[in-house]
Amino acid sequence: MAAPTMHSAPSNPGVDAQPAVRNVLFIMCDQLRADYLSLYGGAIPTPNLERLARRGVRFDRAYVNSGVCGPSRMSYYTGRYPVSHRVTWNRVPLPIDERTLGHYLADAGRSLRLLGKTHFVPDRAGAEVAGCQMDARGRVLFNEGGFDPIERYDGHFEPQAGSAYRQYLIEHGYRSDTPWTDFVIGSRATDGSVASGWLMRNAALPAQVRAEHSETAYLTQRAIDFIEAQGETPWALHLSYIKPHWPAKAPAPYHAMFGPDDCAVPVRSAAERTDPHPVFGAYQRLEESQSFARDEVWRTVRPVVMGLVRQIDDELGRLFDRLEALGRFKDTLILFTSDHGDLAGDHWLGEKEYFYEPVLRVPLVVVDPSAQALAMRGQSSRQFVECVDVLPTILESLGIAIPEHRVEGHSLLRLTRQQALGPPWRDCVFAQLDYAYREARLFLGREPDACNGFMVRDERFKFIWWQGYRPQLFDLQQDPSELDDRGADPSLAPLRAAMQARLFEWLVARRSRVTESHAQVCSRTHAHERMMGILIGRW
Amino acid sequence: MAAPTMHSAPSNPGVDAQPAVRNVLFIMCDQLRADYLSLYGGAIPTPNLERLARRGVRFDRAYVNSGVCGPSRMSYYTGRYPVSHRVTWNRVPLPIDERTLGHYLADAGRSLRLLGKTHFVPDRAGAEVAGCQMDARGRVLFNEGGFDPIERYDGHFEPQAGSAYRQYLIEHGYRSDTPWTDFVIGSRATDGSVASGWLMRNAALPAQVRAEHSETAYLTQRAIDFIEAQGETPWALHLSYIKPHWPAKAPAPYHAMFGPDDCAVPVRSAAERTDPHPVFGAYQRLEESQSFARDEVWRTVRPVVMGLVRQIDDELGRLFDRLEALGRFKDTLILFTSDHGDLAGDHWLGEKEYFYEPVLRVPLVVVDPSAQALAMRGQSSRQFVECVDVLPTILESLGIAIPEHRVEGHSLLRLTRQQALGPPWRDCVFAQLDYAYREARLFLGREPDACNGFMVRDERFKFIWWQGYRPQLFDLQQDPSELDDRGADPSLAPLRAAMQARLFEWLVARRSRVTESHAQVCSRTHAHERMMGILIGRW
Repeated sequence: MAAPTMHSAPSNPGVDAQPAVRNVLFIMCDQLRADYLSLYGGAIPTPNLERLARRGVRFDRAYVNSGVCGPSRMSYYTGRYPVSHRVTWNRVPLPIDERTLGHYLADAGRSLRLLGKTHFVPDRAGAEVAGCQMDARGRVLFNEGGFDPIERYDGHFEPQAGSAYRQYLIEHGYRSDTPWTDFVIGSRATDGSVASGWLMRNAALPAQVRAEHSETAYLTQRAIDFIEAQGETPWALHLSYIKPHWPAKAPAPYHAMFGPDDCAVPVRSAAERTDPHPVFGAYQRLEESQSFARDEVWRTVRPVVMGLVRQIDDELGRLFDRLEALGRFKDTLILFTSDHGDLAGDHWLGEKEYFYEPVLRVPLVVVDPSAQALAMRGQSSRQFVECVDVLPTILESLGIAIPEHRVEGHSLLRLTRQQALGPPWRDCVFAQLDYAYREARLFLGREPDACNGFMVRDERFKFIWWQGYRPQLFDLQQDPSELDDRGADPSLAPLRAAMQARLFEWLVARRSRVTESHAQVCSRTHAHERMMGILIGRW
Repeated sequence: MAAPTMHSAPSNPGVDAQPAVRNVLFIMCDQLRADYLSLYGGAIPTPNLERLARRGVRFDRAYVNSGVCGPSRMSYYTGRYPVSHRVTWNRVPLPIDERTLGHYLADAGRSLRLLGKTHFVPDRAGAEVAGCQMDARGRVLFNEGGFDPIERYDGHFEPQAGSAYRQYLIEHGYRSDTPWTDFVIGSRATDGSVASGWLMRNAALPAQVRAEHSETAYLTQRAIDFIEAQGETPWALHLSYIKPHWPAKAPAPYHAMFGPDDCAVPVRSAAERTDPHPVFGAYQRLEESQSFARDEVWRTVRPVVMGLVRQIDDELGRLFDRLEALGRFKDTLILFTSDHGDLAGDHWLGEKEYFYEPVLRVPLVVVDPSAQALAMRGQSSRQFVECVDVLPTILESLGIAIPEHRVEGHSLLRLTRQQALGPPWRDCVFAQLDYAYREARLFLGREPDACNGFMVRDERFKFIWWQGYRPQLFDLQQDPSELDDRGADPSLAPLRAAMQARLFEWLVARRSRVTESHAQVCSRTHAHERMMGILIGRW
């Protein structure tokens, strides 16, 4: 069962000599699962995302290649799977020979601006060993993974002294040495003390920050200000929201907009706790899993997350209004997505990482302003797309050549523009999890280099291969909720072998020969005589 | 069938607080198959290699991880498989984030000196992009892949103007603008003209260079001079001979030391030309294969190769005499091996690359001077060893920590010192071939990113997986000559599936998380609360 060989569809400059795309707005949320949104039939009203989707294509089967922030984001930013870019966990430095979207744009004389989170960590040790010396701009690109930040803001800590958002908070009356801790994720307890946002028992209390000064509103306003200030100068912006990522804390009125009865009940079964797969069992033992297994926890946290998402949609409404007023919908490629989803009690787990659909399936809307995309506007697509596709989509939209020897994703313009040429689109998606940094590894007593899992999901089945353990298998047709792990069912051994073969075909096709382009390979093929005067095997 | 998890055996400083190994002599030939040598029961008398083996361990099943110079050498020099170091062909630049034996020695305050060939190409484009700036020494290490050359000499071209060997030739009377072309690989035709060494029809004519001025003698003498000059100062030297690599040209008397009836007849069968595997068929069409398929070609070339090998053994005799006189056998780790073997007509192929035993199995002798190695002196080992094992062997012998998050081989000191601790030794070997740069790709009409083959060979079977084609399978017990490809035999499908599963287990275990050491992973495991004050999922 060979996976089809795929190539990015060539752009057709003849049709669109003056590219419609002048600007790029790449919007990302953190930890936003697709099925929560009314955009995808879920319970949270997202009228503004629906409005966005009417201008573009809604992808109904968009997958991230890792359920972990750092690896997933590096896949978005490099167009490469985690096994290739090698950032398999949060805060693992990106090796210095990797190239990101920002680097490719910089090579083309453009700049990729940033507002918000990237989770990028530079490979300082590698740079030191290689003797890298940079000018001021080079140092920024190195430190920020190719981004040119307006403001980087990762949102997991109290912002440091130089942080613009911290300064903004203080200027707006949130007086404290720790304004983020006290106001943005902090609430007021009944006794007047600060109720820490780190504790989920406090989630339902409103943040002390006002909605208009919260992270989501602040980043949106900065984006609006930036776009307005650009005038007719082309720009590319990554607007990367922190929310609805933990700490689960919403400002009024979003903190109380939804209640326990508004949210979906966790998808889980008692059978999942009986003799689970060892890795699944270890994940069930993690603190967040133990917490979310209790009804009061998910009933407290899920409504707050819904409110945070509703706030994002409201803020996006403000942003889209401005884009409309400025005429920017005519010349801006807009992507809306998330770095991964969320579990919050599904399958007796908290948070993310594991290969379940709520973690890996993310929202994705692509608004392609070009004339060729007219027919697909307002349509949805059930094609399998992956987060590695975002980078080549952006490059192609801007007329920048896609370095095929590095980039592993495929431009989605083939789908937004219904380009008929080329090989078939992909028929499965892949993901990876390296749980070496997780307490689950300690529970299982494994070495740091023996904690990999790889997933392939096709039209019907999801197969997960684990280092050192039996695989897992879900039949998504008969068991769409992934409650029945068939990984040990003897009758399905041939199917599992076929799925493993697909993983194998994918692994061997990774772009590892990164120091020579395909064109260089072609020019050097059978060229020893012509290029160097060497005769091999001539009588 | 899970491959055992392996770790380099820890050294035991308590036993050997003053390490016996002060110097390292890492000798490599180019394109030397093991079975030609009397050391391994072959037809070429190699008394000096036998003498070396009496002081150490002869490895009878030593394999390279690629049958191509560049990838194989980068595996020797990085301790990593080609899929990890990503140099899948000759002259593909080594990505700047890779580290070599020379780098590790430099970090430990040592220097890895070089005499001869490395085939290393620096990643100049990567260094430019990363803004690498080096001091004089850093530049040498960068340009030479961590080596500190006494004299680098790759031996495939006319040496450039600054070459010491070129100067040496001219000073010794070989007056020409192209002394290598005219004398080292050139012969005198009967009409007095230069008979080109590039044409195999001229192979049997003696080189115009005298044996004592040939490449092999020259490099040996330089090695002797270097070692003598070191006195009691510790040193590490890679003595890397060009021969018996093409052009097949030997100086007198070695050119005529063997005749057609002295050499082995090519191992091949008529059946191999009938409906061969597509990649094998494409390789049969290469010029060198077409040439070596003719009896007059192998009967002309093989005896010359034998003479070249005999000359290497003679020169090694001179070297070993000096080591003995200097007392260096007492404190020097000596390794003798080759970057790959040779076909010269076996299986209707010329040259190397393909996964046959004569290509992948190489000679390997390891002389470990430590007291713990006494029991194994003069013994042979049938353990499977791979060229990635050389780097960790050298590091461990010098008491340098092995960076386990990068290095994929295992120190052979566990075998030379019969260390009983630790997990079982490996039970199979792996190799890779990327034929994208070869005319075979054009014959098959394949894209540059779709030409990978991967091999696993265990005690009994050799399985080769090819991108886009059926696999190959040889039963080395019933068919030690690899003449009967069982890759399409329906009855062996379960066996092939099991072998492919081994390849899969190997692929997913590659060391890709290179920017954090195992110790760093362990210190960061489940450490978000302790290191950053972050609480995840706490009620």
